[in-house]
Amino acid sequence: MHFRDALPLQSGASIRAYDLRYETYGQLNADKSNAVLICHALNASHHVAGVYLDQAGQVKAKSEGWWDTMIGPGKPVDTNQFFVIGVNNLGSCFGSTGPMQINPDTGEVYGADFPVVTVQDWVSAQARLLDALGIQTLAAVMGGSLGGMQALAWTLQYPDRVRHAVVVASAPNLTAENIAFNEVARRAIVTDPDFHGGHFYRHGVLPKRGLRIARMIGHITYLSDDVMNEKFGRQLRAPTLPAVRGSLPPEGAAPPAARQSRTRGRNLDDQHGYPSQAFKYSTQDVEFEIESYLRYQGDKFAEYFDANTYLLITRALDYFDPASEYGGDLSRALAQATAKFLLVSFTTDWRFAPARSREIVKALLDNQRDVTYAEIDAPHGHDAFLLDDARYMGVIRSYFQRKVAL
Amino acid sequence: MHFRDALPLQSGASIRAYDLRYETYGQLNADKSNAVLICHALNASHHVAGVYLDQAGQVKAKSEGWWDTMIGPGKPVDTNQFFVIGVNNLGSCFGSTGPMQINPDTGEVYGADFPVVTVQDWVSAQARLLDALGIQTLAAVMGGSLGGMQALAWTLQYPDRVRHAVVVASAPNLTAENIAFNEVARRAIVTDPDFHGGHFYRHGVLPKRGLRIARMIGHITYLSDDVMNEKFGRQLRAPTLPAVRGSLPPEGAAPPAARQSRTRGRNLDDQHGYPSQAFKYSTQDVEFEIESYLRYQGDKFAEYFDANTYLLITRALDYFDPASEYGGDLSRALAQATAKFLLVSFTTDWRFAPARSREIVKALLDNQRDVTYAEIDAPHGHDAFLLDDARYMGVIRSYFQRKVAL
Repeated sequence: MHFRDALPLQSGASIRAYDLRYETYGQLNADKSNAVLICHALNASHHVAGVYLDQAGQVKAKSEGWWDTMIGPGKPVDTNQFFVIGVNNLGSCFGSTGPMQINPDTGEVYGADFPVVTVQDWVSAQARLLDALGIQTLAAVMGGSLGGMQALAWTLQYPDRVRHAVVVASAPNLTAENIAFNEVARRAIVTDPDFHGGHFYRHGVLPKRGLRIARMIGHITYLSDDVMNEKFGRQLRAPTLPAVRGSLPPEGAAPPAARQSRTRGRNLDDQHGYPSQAFKYSTQDVEFEIESYLRYQGDKFAEYFDANTYLLITRALDYFDPASEYGGDLSRALAQATAKFLLVSFTTDWRFAPARSREIVKALLDNQRDVTYAEIDAPHGHDAFLLDDARYMGVIRSYFQRKVAL
Repeated sequence: MHFRDALPLQSGASIRAYDLRYETYGQLNADKSNAVLICHALNASHHVAGVYLDQAGQVKAKSEGWWDTMIGPGKPVDTNQFFVIGVNNLGSCFGSTGPMQINPDTGEVYGADFPVVTVQDWVSAQARLLDALGIQTLAAVMGGSLGGMQALAWTLQYPDRVRHAVVVASAPNLTAENIAFNEVARRAIVTDPDFHGGHFYRHGVLPKRGLRIARMIGHITYLSDDVMNEKFGRQLRAPTLPAVRGSLPPEGAAPPAARQSRTRGRNLDDQHGYPSQAFKYSTQDVEFEIESYLRYQGDKFAEYFDANTYLLITRALDYFDPASEYGGDLSRALAQATAKFLLVSFTTDWRFAPARSREIVKALLDNQRDVTYAEIDAPHGHDAFLLDDARYMGVIRSYFQRKVAL
């Protein structure tokens, strides 16, 4: 969708003209009352569900939407019932206007000149998309992590356009530690000699070293200590077998190839997987499976993600803080929200811990709002919001069937 | 102290000839029974206590030993009573033989060719230093974090040479998450174009970008989320005042200059320190105090610490795992230890959490060993082991007076 009118931004700057890439699933009903907007987190996109087909009509490999377990026909957010909209945010790198696109004012790629955008700016842009689609009121706005912040912001900026907000694994703002992790990742990117002050496109290079480090740091914070120990532990890397590939396997999947250790048969205790002194004694080679996994995640990310987008999106996270205009009083800040809420958190999420969700619950209850809260006992850390956990899916399904669908 | 005999290493390599820099405090008694060896962690040295004087006899600024709160006349480890030895480990960069020194085999600086050393290797080298000093048995060996691992290793490698081991804020091995943080830091260093495969000395450059990132990551894991929120929170940086300088101030010190925010008088709630929209809207400038603090810590570290040493010492951490030769059974591994033990952990330490110390306590109790364990309720995270906490100091003082001094 192309927007011809300039969008004024929270920073005081504006974006003159811009595109938002979006996808929809299911049918908008006659009174346009069944729309559900899905907001994405750091590295996701408008492609929330379903698969893509190639020209021969075959399903493209790995083309599943990032929340395909959650959204689709018969799924917890049932597209037989709801009209679901996924939208790529401004400043991202999956088709909406962002740092990789041409700045119409200069005829050059934006690069580092792309204006800083905030959660509030994204919500403003999403509201214009709904205007263009003729949708006045959302049945629900929903997101996890940074996406949950957007859902919360919707209820404050457009209280009369949101009936329900589903806020998963999110927080009312970042802690100092959260900001610290973002800052280290940004420094890794910005100090990469291939970053060129954010204008690397015109130098024909990409700051991949920095992006790899940024992603490795991020990945550590997405997983719980427990799930890392369970899946990787101190297991050494098998030299002849492929490294663990792809993202974290869903619950119940086979364990990674890591268990086929090079130390098998060499005084290895099968039950514990403890190797006996089979080290390479190297500071640069991979010794442990967890190293191999992180390096792979970093390499993969650096191939597809834009460095300037990474900076912008982590900054949007840092800035989000609806209570700041109320002296830090979240209850006063959320008094504007009139939507009904579902909040979900995960016990092992140390990035946005359950206590952060409970802050939002308390602030809503202080305002006598209608709030449902589920704290899911799941081992996967922050990543749990993307995984197929039966209790989590059950809560979302029930909420949509019993509350949103009414 | 120079050692002419080659030291065989766990890797199979050896170091042909080497120096260990050390300092001593107090007097060795007639029967040489009052020696206490202090083992250091990642970025510390032999200089554990006291200050240095300049040529005019004045105390040099910031020359206090890294455990000066703990060790000295009348302090918890009382140098009026004990003969304390601090030693810089092999591979470190504060005077003992390491990657910055000349390899006698080649006449060139070691650089990346310095052999990988382990906790066990350090203990072997420390034992030779004691031999040279004529000390057969230590009253105590003591260390925090990686230093605690060395103290534990002493009780396994030289059980008859250690009467007491004091193991503070340590762990029986690294978890996958611990290794992951080390690995990201190493990748930041190794992928810095100025690293030159570890032979940057001959190029006249230093991989400071990588060292800065490594230190920033490390620093986050040394602090608790709570203490970061208390000291920095979401406070914006004051543009005209100096950034927060120096390491974490001790308990009770004045809060950082952060509270003098640029937003003072601009709708700032003094109690919460919440700024109101005074952002620069920049992805690269410092916005928050925590960013300024981390950048400063990274810059400072990159000025004095050797990149190859960083790789070596984090690897020594990764490799340490006394249970590995016993199928992961720590109780069996610790059966060799005959020393008496004091273990101390800190409630908010998420790097080496109290549960890790309790694993050691349990394994020692399984062997009917004499163990004292203190879990100190302190807000400072892993860094607490370096700080002056009254209950912590009291426990160490009591242990040395009532157990070690007997």
